[in-house]
Amino acid sequence: MSHFIQLITPIVTRGVRTLDDLAPLERDDLKIRHSLLERGPASIESEFDEALSVPDLLRKALEAEQAGAKAIVIDCMGDPGLHACREALSIPVLGAGQAALHLANMLGRRFAFITVLQRIRPMIERIVRDYGLAQNYASFQAIDIPVLELAHDPDALHGALSDKAKAAIEQDGADLIVLGCTGFLGCAEAIRAALLEAGQDVPVIDPIPAAVHLADALIKSGLSHSKAAYPRPAAKPAAGHPLPGFSEPTPG
Amino acid sequence: MSHFIQLITPIVTRGVRTLDDLAPLERDDLKIRHSLLERGPASIESEFDEALSVPDLLRKALEAEQAGAKAIVIDCMGDPGLHACREALSIPVLGAGQAALHLANMLGRRFAFITVLQRIRPMIERIVRDYGLAQNYASFQAIDIPVLELAHDPDALHGALSDKAKAAIEQDGADLIVLGCTGFLGCAEAIRAALLEAGQDVPVIDPIPAAVHLADALIKSGLSHSKAAYPRPAAKPAAGHPLPGFSEPTPG
Amino acid sequence: MSHFIQLITPIVTRGVRTLDDLAPLERDDLKIRHSLLERGPASIESEFDEALSVPDLLRKALEAEQAGAKAIVIDCMGDPGLHACREALSIPVLGAGQAALHLANMLGRRFAFITVLQRIRPMIERIVRDYGLAQNYASFQAIDIPVLELAHDPDALHGALSDKAKAAIEQDGADLIVLGCTGFLGCAEAIRAALLEAGQDVPVIDPIPAAVHLADALIKSGLSHSKAAYPRPAAKPAAGHPLPGFSEPTPG
Amino acid sequence: MSHFIQLITPIVTRGVRTLDDLAPLERDDLKIRHSLLERGPASIESEFDEALSVPDLLRKALEAEQAGAKAIVIDCMGDPGLHACREALSIPVLGAGQAALHLANMLGRRFAFITVLQRIRPMIERIVRDYGLAQNYASFQAIDIPVLELAHDPDALHGALSDKAKAAIEQDGADLIVLGCTGFLGCAEAIRAALLEAGQDVPVIDPIPAAVHLADALIKSGLSHSKAAYPRPAAKPAAGHPLPGFSEPTPG
Amino acid sequence: MSHFIQLITPIVTRGVRTLDDLAPLERDDLKIRHSLLERGPASIESEFDEALSVPDLLRKALEAEQAGAKAIVIDCMGDPGLHACREALSIPVLGAGQAALHLANMLGRRFAFITVLQRIRPMIERIVRDYGLAQNYASFQAIDIPVLELAHDPDALHGALSDKAKAAIEQDGADLIVLGCTGFLGCAEAIRAALLEAGQDVPVIDPIPAAVHLADALIKSGLSHSKAAYPRPAAKPAAGHPLPGFSEPTPG
Amino acid sequence: MSHFIQLITPIVTRGVRTLDDLAPLERDDLKIRHSLLERGPASIESEFDEALSVPDLLRKALEAEQAGAKAIVIDCMGDPGLHACREALSIPVLGAGQAALHLANMLGRRFAFITVLQRIRPMIERIVRDYGLAQNYASFQAIDIPVLELAHDPDALHGALSDKAKAAIEQDGADLIVLGCTGFLGCAEAIRAALLEAGQDVPVIDPIPAAVHLADALIKSGLSHSKAAYPRPAAKPAAGHPLPGFSEPTPG
Repeated sequence: MSHFIQLITPIVTRGVRTLDDLAPLERDDLKIRHSLLERGPASIESEFDEALSVPDLLRKALEAEQAGAKAIVIDCMGDPGLHACREALSIPVLGAGQAALHLANMLGRRFAFITVLQRIRPMIERIVRDYGLAQNYASFQAIDIPVLELAHDPDALHGALSDKAKAAIEQDGADLIVLGCTGFLGCAEAIRAALLEAGQDVPVIDPIPAAVHLADALIKSGLSHSKAAYPRPAAKPAAGHPLPGFSEPTPG
Repeated sequence: MSHFIQLITPIVTRGVRTLDDLAPLERDDLKIRHSLLERGPASIESEFDEALSVPDLLRKALEAEQAGAKAIVIDCMGDPGLHACREALSIPVLGAGQAALHLANMLGRRFAFITVLQRIRPMIERIVRDYGLAQNYASFQAIDIPVLELAHDPDALHGALSDKAKAAIEQDGADLIVLGCTGFLGCAEAIRAALLEAGQDVPVIDPIPAAVHLADALIKSGLSHSKAAYPRPAAKPAAGHPLPGFSEPTPG
Repeated sequence: MSHFIQLITPIVTRGVRTLDDLAPLERDDLKIRHSLLERGPASIESEFDEALSVPDLLRKALEAEQAGAKAIVIDCMGDPGLHACREALSIPVLGAGQAALHLANMLGRRFAFITVLQRIRPMIERIVRDYGLAQNYASFQAIDIPVLELAHDPDALHGALSDKAKAAIEQDGADLIVLGCTGFLGCAEAIRAALLEAGQDVPVIDPIPAAVHLADALIKSGLSHSKAAYPRPAAKPAAGHPLPGFSEPTPG
Repeated sequence: MSHFIQLITPIVTRGVRTLDDLAPLERDDLKIRHSLLERGPASIESEFDEALSVPDLLRKALEAEQAGAKAIVIDCMGDPGLHACREALSIPVLGAGQAALHLANMLGRRFAFITVLQRIRPMIERIVRDYGLAQNYASFQAIDIPVLELAHDPDALHGALSDKAKAAIEQDGADLIVLGCTGFLGCAEAIRAALLEAGQDVPVIDPIPAAVHLADALIKSGLSHSKAAYPRPAAKPAAGHPLPGFSEPTPG
Repeated sequence: MSHFIQLITPIVTRGVRTLDDLAPLERDDLKIRHSLLERGPASIESEFDEALSVPDLLRKALEAEQAGAKAIVIDCMGDPGLHACREALSIPVLGAGQAALHLANMLGRRFAFITVLQRIRPMIERIVRDYGLAQNYASFQAIDIPVLELAHDPDALHGALSDKAKAAIEQDGADLIVLGCTGFLGCAEAIRAALLEAGQDVPVIDPIPAAVHLADALIKSGLSHSKAAYPRPAAKPAAGHPLPGFSEPTPG
Repeated sequence: MSHFIQLITPIVTRGVRTLDDLAPLERDDLKIRHSLLERGPASIESEFDEALSVPDLLRKALEAEQAGAKAIVIDCMGDPGLHACREALSIPVLGAGQAALHLANMLGRRFAFITVLQRIRPMIERIVRDYGLAQNYASFQAIDIPVLELAHDPDALHGALSDKAKAAIEQDGADLIVLGCTGFLGCAEAIRAALLEAGQDVPVIDPIPAAVHLADALIKSGLSHSKAAYPRPAAKPAAGHPLPGFSEPTPG
């Protein structure tokens, strides 16, 4: 008997994430389905981008729950819409950022967050504080490559990530690396190998596998987020974002 | 020479906020303009509601800046879209919650937050932590009246708010009251009088006047939010939320 | 292809934990083995008891790793020996307390810890701080029944736990319950049902299933604790606790 | 109708602060009056200096309130006597440090404090903690020029401040500059221009304008500090510091 | 060979503190001398009172150091002038509050502060935060008797203190009592006996003995406060508070 | 009349600590006795080593209390077994780390911890957090010499410690040095002299004298740890670590 987890990539750009990426995570008892948005930004590199992604992400999440998904994983390190989705849904909703950051706090003492652009630092530090995990946050590093250019040159990407990981360890005393963009999916092994070669035995967290397996653990443990902490929104009139059962078109 | 501040009420319900409410705040050198949304929820009582309000709030804020506003005040205590607006705009953007909470920390040692519904407690505590103001947060109280019913019975509203304010002071040791819903505009004087009568000389912060005057202080000081903390989003293709200069319709 | 996790109950009392308890957690790809100690206390209800359990727990953990275990779960909410085991081992080592507390922080905003005896409160609050999770810690409740008497009257146990859970929710504002003793294994469903009946839709975390599934998620994600954070102890002479490869008998 | 704010410079040195400095801050509805001390230190560069300034500062503040001032601003970044003045007075009392630090937390995420001498670092960090604002404190820089020599060479002063501001941004990741001495009044524009020229679009807070406008905002919002947090001192016998209504000469 | 510690009671009221109180603390190698102020308040019950006490306290502390004292203890729980004294002196300066609070954090996990008047709560919480000791602060209780009336009825005083101590333990979960006024000197034994009789084996810290013995420990360890943290104030012109070597009368 | 303090060095290596080291700390009214372990590690450089030391340390501490010791000092900076000993004993038990860290927080604002090996950093930071003293923790430095080699070359040791102390001051802004290994006993004077020569007037805390004198202060103040915070463990069956009155051999 298997269940499925819905991974929602909260952007409109096709081809960045494919089911091929996710196949290695599937098991006999765990299947993964994937959604992109129809309305939203091409990529997420700001809270502005996040804001434009959330209404359609909510729709996709509600549809997935109705289709029988046993958990939702939001495929973005800033966890856009996490709290809103949890209010609307009963099945577990995890953000890739949230999952990776909690595992980082469980496995190390001083984690580094290595991501695409310096500009998202405040946005990431905001969720680190929100989750109460600032105590072990030791380093923020950016490779200075926009999300949509990550696939252009995998070797350069691996090199840049390894360099920043080494800097985080040597200069900032980090003892664990969080890959801080879900676009880095699949890079962890190469970075870990490069670090080991440099004599640094530190884990490298790849957020999507981590979040998917954590969601699976929640399903198997029969756990979801607290509805007392995330109460279901009252149905109410709304304009422009019809979401059945929640936002009903305003009359007239 | 006068400037104007744009107050944006991030809901679609007409009549909740009128320019009459705001007239007492105007001065020779300070005018106030007001916007409602065209797309968004009827009221804001969850992060779900907030999420649906932000795209159109961004549009209204960008339009106000272009029309010459010298500052924006977001008329909601959860400060929806605050960070996204700051990324997109150069003029100061203040949330009513942010303004009231910072003044509370400046003027007292243990503030109480008194609001409409118990269910928004996690949402409020999230911004209290984000702003770094949890140190003095002493009490959360809710009167259990939905936003859109606040105007039904002003005397009952004043009574309920005064009772909760007294409970916050006597049971939780609060020494300052933050009115935790912008729908309470104009109630501060009555609550303060009721507290004084009960022997409690504690300030009552009415968030909208506080935020408007604080925005005015920023304008006069020549200050705005840091663009290094809130960098301008890159223009990029997007679907469904056209915002000139930022989100351009995807080709094809 | 399956792997196995070793659950170590760090006490010497037979019969408290049996493989029957653990069978429901097994899957086609996940087997569980169990160890008791040969040297150590009858039960753990103090840091004193913990101290006496750790040397033999270390031996059992080292033996399990050598026998091919893919992860260790320490079957006690105070997580005795967690850091020492992580230093000595390379495979993931999780404490039941650590796993439950991190999940609590991921799923709720204000968790309650409900346990056997009031006296362990300082010991638990110490690990909550160590893990950096104090931000969401809202309530500590004790049912006042020693560990070794838990099995005497299951109905009374369920009643006492449900009562304390309700008190935590109603008096302390908790929105999530952590069952704070691994001796409560299997009680979560009954407590959750009692809470739902009382109109409280809050999760109840049963630490052993949570820790086992979390360990499984780490294995599947290829992650373990950071060896930079938990460096392998130097082999050195020792007296009285021979642990091959680490503590060698002192000469003479 | 206008009100006036009393700025009290808590030192005895004439000529450091003049009404000419303050004229640009005046408006039709806002006048500023100024006091120096008759007893106290020549400048404030330690808690020792602060201690000697407070008794006479209290006297000046009480006199200003009696003369009809609507608010007091203490013209020193260490906020000497702030809490004592608030106990004694009912009108709002703001410290320049307090005002600047709160605005810094509202407008940026990582503020730098740039001041005269390294030696005042502990004194400043004490008030940062007291106000609960340590979360966003990122950098402390000193130009190594004593207060009373600041006016000797304005160009050198601007250069030194700009250099330290750039160091704070580039080395410490600051995204907002607080000018950490009220003797820097009027320098903000030049520093901000130098930063913009260097490609750094970060705000520079000039504490005196910020505090004066913030005090004005409090007056217009009808707010003052909480008398529950700052209760009026009991009148009692005292020797040596007669303050009518509070400290009465001891009999005999 | 013996050394002496100077206890400075920073008020002008004679008879509140006598050498008889201090005699039991003396040893062959430890003598105690005592000073009252000549200028200052009759008692300290506010930051206002503190401010008036500090200039003369500084003078007394400087005189004691010159007279050969090996350490200074400030006889007031709010630690008035502690930082200023440390700047001016090289010998160890301890506040009674600081000593008691640090010992409380060393010996218990949740301390209660029991004092004279509710009104000093913000003042005490300010030093608790300053010293970084808020983590274990669990309870504030006031007996509602002014400082100068403490000696009127010792039995009533003991009764009131015991009642508040029990309330702190039973209602707030305190496990250690700090007597929060140096006017309670000598009461600890009676409170501790009353608590033991009630089945509560919790320590009761009497601040003056604690501070004197702690000062003695510093002397014997050859330790004083860091002059890098408390640099010596520059000598400078001053008016009204002549302190040789520091504040020199302004010329003319 | 004199009392004695028992110093327990929780290792089995003879000759590292001798009574000659401790003689200078003795006074007419204070004697010191010393114990080594019979079972435990050769030195302590990990939590693994700590775990192996605690059972026998508990036995030695119980024996010392029975022999009339008035306080126990654990001679190791990681404070192994501190909480367990406090549960089992009524007389004050202090760890060398705990004593030094609290004094560091009392005497400076930014302390540095200078120790043997980089690898113990997480272990030390764990106790810093546990004691609530992270606020002032500014620097961790290691000289990279194992504990058992410290005595090989005293000059090299002094040089290495002085160099790291200077680095902590100059690079990390430390204003106080904690010698972070009790094997550094007697080095403080040389380091302090080297720092003074370099123009750095910062205290250097030698943990063993500090802890012994602090224990003496507790004895003279009639204080011990709270038995409410550290309740006495219930006597119970145990295997392998017989501790009369606590752990009784299991029957059969």
